[in-house]
Amino acid sequence: MNVRLYLRYDGTAYHGWQIQNMNGKESGLKTIQGTLASALRALYGDFAGKIEGQEAVEPIGVSRTDAGVHADMYCASFHTDNESIPAERICYALKQFLPSDICVYRSEKAPDDFHARFDVVSKTYKYLFYTGEFSVPALENRAWHVSIKNGTSLDLDAMKLAAKGLLGTHQFDAFCAAGGSAKTTERTIFDIRVEKVNAPFLMPDGSDLYALYVEGDGFLYNMVRIIAGTIVYAGQGKIQPADIPEIIASKNRKKAGITAPAQGLYLNKVKY
Amino acid sequence: MNVRLYLRYDGTAYHGWQIQNMNGKESGLKTIQGTLASALRALYGDFAGKIEGQEAVEPIGVSRTDAGVHADMYCASFHTDNESIPAERICYALKQFLPSDICVYRSEKAPDDFHARFDVVSKTYKYLFYTGEFSVPALENRAWHVSIKNGTSLDLDAMKLAAKGLLGTHQFDAFCAAGGSAKTTERTIFDIRVEKVNAPFLMPDGSDLYALYVEGDGFLYNMVRIIAGTIVYAGQGKIQPADIPEIIASKNRKKAGITAPAQGLYLNKVKY
Repeated sequence: MNVRLYLRYDGTAYHGWQIQNMNGKESGLKTIQGTLASALRALYGDFAGKIEGQEAVEPIGVSRTDAGVHADMYCASFHTDNESIPAERICYALKQFLPSDICVYRSEKAPDDFHARFDVVSKTYKYLFYTGEFSVPALENRAWHVSIKNGTSLDLDAMKLAAKGLLGTHQFDAFCAAGGSAKTTERTIFDIRVEKVNAPFLMPDGSDLYALYVEGDGFLYNMVRIIAGTIVYAGQGKIQPADIPEIIASKNRKKAGITAPAQGLYLNKVKY
Repeated sequence: MNVRLYLRYDGTAYHGWQIQNMNGKESGLKTIQGTLASALRALYGDFAGKIEGQEAVEPIGVSRTDAGVHADMYCASFHTDNESIPAERICYALKQFLPSDICVYRSEKAPDDFHARFDVVSKTYKYLFYTGEFSVPALENRAWHVSIKNGTSLDLDAMKLAAKGLLGTHQFDAFCAAGGSAKTTERTIFDIRVEKVNAPFLMPDGSDLYALYVEGDGFLYNMVRIIAGTIVYAGQGKIQPADIPEIIASKNRKKAGITAPAQGLYLNKVKY
């Protein structure tokens, strides 16, 4: 059967989703995919989940998240001939084989031709950032600290306007880091919103926490992190919201904002 | 001059606040106090902050927090003869010498006889816990996962009632772990509240996040963690709120709830 897994993870300790190969061999770097594969092998045995042409269970993931990036909802699929564990119980059975920073919270039977990466209709990323003169260690590795003077704040309206300018179908060359493997730079952003988060249980006085959500049909290399950097630039007045169409049209990476750090980024939702 | 520092830290990587000695020598275990002392030495030089009878700067802290415990607000003080850095600038000067999980966010001149531990009037601790069948890796090391079946929840009213029963001055033997060094078990809880936290940017569907705040004149060994465990027991119906006075009167540790894990605990506020 083909099995669909939904997981969430803290990516701090991992070199991203994808198993890293070096000279045709696994590099030994800890990855989410590799850790999940080990858990599946521990559950099923090395070859019970054998896929044609592969040596052992290797789950297919919806997205290659980078090192340090997290997931609130990530989808992975794998085939197994072993139906002794009902699909919906696999998430419980995996608990004992996974470290505490990876949690498979749902599992279900998927159509035989389901493919976690190719079949995705939209992905939503979340980006968390906060302000203040000093950092908030409770957000260490989980949000971007935008250092600004006490008593000042980001312009939320400007950030909302800048976000609006990114909506729709565009060629996002200006929001793409070198090194990606995409064939085209055209992507569609279905929805984008930035909001100030009320979290007094977490944030000290003088610091504001913000969440940015971007839903699209797909994303170029570092695209969400560059969008986050650009939105923050708009909040700081370094970029005018009205300039966003021009920045997109320029296709020039240097016109957009900086690449926000990986640790503020979460794959938040996937739709099939 | 005598300097008061306010800091916050993520305690995950540390063996608590206090420098650990073994056979009269520092043990080499990483502590908040040791790390702060190193930063002060880097700033001032080894002996500039010399205190009578001590060999180098050693900040005095408001409380010995345990391994894995965090702080939203922690107060430490130290003496220095070097007044070249104005007291209120020390927090900026320390930035470069501190790791990112410790942040000194305020510094000020204190009266010569100020003592961070002896002069404290009240301390408030925060305890974060959440429910759900599966863990939330984004809260890994920073909150306690109370595993309960999906579709069920904790009884917030029962938790609030149980908390109320702890208010006031009592002999808290039932809420004290063995191994403490307190001369008396009498402590006063000035304020205690438990609330459900609305944090959709953080929590998945089916999980609830709670914050418990306890303000008191002082706390016995593991006292807040045992209070948190007892409150959660009340929320699960394992203890009746009406039984709290009896549990206190019993002075029997076994009558109270379990000791909640260190990682959910934060020193939240100190008053002088």
